[in-house]
Amino acid sequence: MRILGIDPGSRVTGFGVIDSDGRQSRHVFSGCIRTSSKDFCARLGEIFNGIQQVLEEHAPQQVAVEQVFMAANASSALKLGHARGAAITAAVVAQLPVYEYTPRAVKLALVGTGAAQKEQVQHMIRLLLGQLQPMGLDESDALAVALCHAHTHLNSQKLRGLS
Amino acid sequence: MRILGIDPGSRVTGFGVIDSDGRQSRHVFSGCIRTSSKDFCARLGEIFNGIQQVLEEHAPQQVAVEQVFMAANASSALKLGHARGAAITAAVVAQLPVYEYTPRAVKLALVGTGAAQKEQVQHMIRLLLGQLQPMGLDESDALAVALCHAHTHLNSQKLRGLS
Repeated sequence: MRILGIDPGSRVTGFGVIDSDGRQSRHVFSGCIRTSSKDFCARLGEIFNGIQQVLEEHAPQQVAVEQVFMAANASSALKLGHARGAAITAAVVAQLPVYEYTPRAVKLALVGTGAAQKEQVQHMIRLLLGQLQPMGLDESDALAVALCHAHTHLNSQKLRGLS
Repeated sequence: MRILGIDPGSRVTGFGVIDSDGRQSRHVFSGCIRTSSKDFCARLGEIFNGIQQVLEEHAPQQVAVEQVFMAANASSALKLGHARGAAITAAVVAQLPVYEYTPRAVKLALVGTGAAQKEQVQHMIRLLLGQLQPMGLDESDALAVALCHAHTHLNSQKLRGLS
């Protein structure tokens, strides 16, 4: 199963593509979309087009996004909402299923505790995907949510298949 | 100039298309996209596809959206942000310019005071576009922001053209 993880933001949107059978995972491609437009609406277009390009080039079958409940304030929540809306819409119009995971669920799936530090999460990503080029937090968070989906969803599917 | 006004929301997104020369305006088409999916991500796809359909069928040249600064709380701001993100992205990827107006600017342009009541705004829409079928607030708010854009932007363009 090929999975795309996305960590959306209005300035930087991280993405990470992995192949996984639910136990073993392989890094396929990752990076980030840095929006350059001064105009906020144009930045949404850059995010949408950037994700669309990743979908076309790497053909993931499922998409995972970190769920956000809280933001510092209503204004930053609104901005983040726009960016997530643009990114998720790109996946939905490509008719891909989108799964959301809380930050706690991502940490729990990768490190075994919902209160894990960022360094532990990055350590687990390297352990699971092998040595990767140094990467920013947006890119590693995108890979983390893709791995979380691989471990929780694919395994739960298998369990259902057995029952 | 053909203008599309949008009033985005995760449950109901109003839209209104008008033709205007900056002084006289004509109602072309208006309505609302009522999202039906239980899944929030799928609702974003419905909004995106709904706006895309309006763009294809009515070919507006410019798009106007009411700007939102405030929301009741961070959670509702995040939801509204997603919906606006999906709607605006549909316009941006169709390479249409998107203009944002504060609710105060819309009232000021239509009624002459930023503190106008909703009834006064609805009265002015009927006066400017003729008798229309009864419509919900989402639809009339979309027409209001389209008319605001027609009056302020097209007229300011003309002034620039003269100088």
